[in-house]
Parts: sequence; C-alpha cells; structure tokens
Amino acid sequence: MKGYQHVSIADLEKASGKTKATLYGYFENKAQMASVVLSYNFEQKRQAIYRLSEERQTIKGKLLAHIEIHRPVHADRLVGGGCPILNAGVEVDDANDQLRILTADALTSWAKDITQLIDTGIKNDEFRKDINPAQTAWELISIIEGAIFISRTTQNQNLGLQLLDVAQIRVEQLVPNYTKASAQ
Amino acid sequence: MKGYQHVSIADLEKASGKTKATLYGYFENKAQMASVVLSYNFEQKRQAIYRLSEERQTIKGKLLAHIEIHRPVHADRLVGGGCPILNAGVEVDDANDQLRILTADALTSWAKDITQLIDTGIKNDEFRKDINPAQTAWELISIIEGAIFISRTTQNQNLGLQLLDVAQIRVEQLVPNYTKASAQ
Repeated sequence: MKGYQHVSIADLEKASGKTKATLYGYFENKAQMASVVLSYNFEQKRQAIYRLSEERQTIKGKLLAHIEIHRPVHADRLVGGGCPILNAGVEVDDANDQLRILTADALTSWAKDITQLIDTGIKNDEFRKDINPAQTAWELISIIEGAIFISRTTQNQNLGLQLLDVAQIRVEQLVPNYTKASAQ
Repeated sequence: MKGYQHVSIADLEKASGKTKATLYGYFENKAQMASVVLSYNFEQKRQAIYRLSEERQTIKGKLLAHIEIHRPVHADRLVGGGCPILNAGVEVDDANDQLRILTADALTSWAKDITQLIDTGIKNDEFRKDINPAQTAWELISIIEGAIFISRTTQNQNLGLQLLDVAQIRVEQLVPNYTKASAQ
C-alpha cells in the first residue's frame, strides 16, 4: 500500500512485527523482499481468478470471471489495495528494472491466459471466428486496469463499475449473433 | 519524471538551475510547486489535443485526435514523460488529497470534452443514436491510459500502438452502418 520502492524499513518492521535484523535474515535486501512480495501478490490474484473461473461451465463465463473478480462482491478474494499489477506497474522507472520485468511478466501471462480462453471459445463455436484473441485480451486488460485507476483517482466507484460493465459487454459481443442494439 | 511526491529539493534545484532559497521565493512548499507543475502539464496536454482536433473537419476526426495525440508521430506535441494524468494519478494515496483532486478534475474534464464531442456527433447524425456518450468517453480514456501503462511496463511499444488502434476502431463503430466484420 505504501509502494514497493518507497516503503521504509521501519514500515516493514511495524507491518511484519519483526525486527530489521530478523527481516535481513530472511531477505538479502529490500529489493529482493519487494520481488518476493510482488510475485506472491501476482500469484494470489492469478489463483483468485482461477478459482472463480473454475466455478463457471462456459468459456464465456470463465472469461467474465477475469472481469468480475474486480467487483466489490469478490473483494475478499483479492489481496487488499487493488490490482497488484497496477500498483507495481505505476512504480516502474528506469532505476528498477527488476520490478518492471516481474510486472511485465505478470501482465503478459494474464494476457496469455485470456488469449487462450478466447482461442478455446472460438474453437468451441462459443465465440465468433473473426475476432483477434490477443488484441481482445489486451483490450479487456486495459479497460479493467483503467477502471481501477479511474475509480481510485476520482474516488467514484460507480465509474469503475460502469467500465467493468463495458468490459463485460465486450465479452458478450464475442458471441455470434449478439445484437448490437443492446451493446451500449 | 521522478514523481510529484518523491522528487527531492536537490533534484528540483538541479532541474531548474535555481537554488532552494530562490524556489521557496516562488512557491510556499513542495506540495504547492507540485500543484502548479501538475496544472501546467494537464493544461499543456489539453491544449495539444485541442490544437490537433482543430485541424480536423469532422466530429469523428476531432474525436480521433484525442487518441492519435498519444502516437509517436505527435510526441513533440506532448510534454515528455507520457500522460501527465497517468503519471500523477498513480501517485494518488490517502496522504495527498490535493494532488488526487487535481488529477481527478483533469480526468473528468477530459471525459467531459469527449462526451460533448460524441453528443455533438449524435446531434449532427455523424454518430449512431443508440450510443451512451459518457460511457464511451470513459471507455476510450481507459483504453488510452491502459495503452500507455502497458507499453511502458512491458517496454513493448507495439502493444500500446495496437491498443490505440482498438480505441480508434471503437470510434469508427460510432458511425451508423459501420460494418462489424472489419472491426477486429
């Protein structure tokens, strides 16, 4: 919540209930600790999405799980403080390439998961043949991260929820013969 | 480029070529300086979009200017370091409500500009009657900010450019009788 780069050792002592000496027994330095925490948070999010999508029978349902996991009703499934990828990615700068690469890997593996789902949906005839799976995956991720960024910045949760609605409409539009009239 | 909250007074002395004493002659404190710089950067971006959209004759062309301004070909029109709204918004936390409110205002006034353009396009029969202008405005902003965030994090400019293509396709789809087949 304080940011991976700007959190102090004192903050970490307080949050963990461990002394600096103990923490340095577990981790080589703050950067290594950040990498471990980051990887853990990314994995937690990925598993939360996986568990929700496992409850769904259709590819469309599984794809919607990637969006719905960000709704307040599923808040208990995600680690506090919003999307760990957005939180880490915003701290990316030239000075810390290790954090950037970890975050980029989390983004691209998320996009790959969504792309594979869409691919499967196309092969199963659940989705239209004329869609570009990777492009659609990145579009959905953009709208989801945009929703979190915009609702956090404006402190207007409704804006974020409406953007998640838009992402879900984009998923509905992957289904053949979806009527355009109900899209907006 | 170092972030509004984390830039040091020494950095500011170096970048401005002024001493700390001189800087404190202009500004009350670092927070006030951040607000002034932030407002300036937001206004620069707004004017850059305005100038590009003034070159366009149609509402669709003006709307596309909001997206195209983020392409490398127009890089000289924007202040360095990407989108000032994204840069500032990512630093938002509970400790600095002044920066957050400035950034939220920049986001909402951008959304309002786009919403008004779409409204005009609907009234002029350039755009379909069944679209939701505000929802579409926020969707476009999400995809644009997502494009910048994703291309910066992955250091893959093509991903960002492809997302700007997606945003432009969404604008094309506002035109009546746009054929769905060419959308993806």
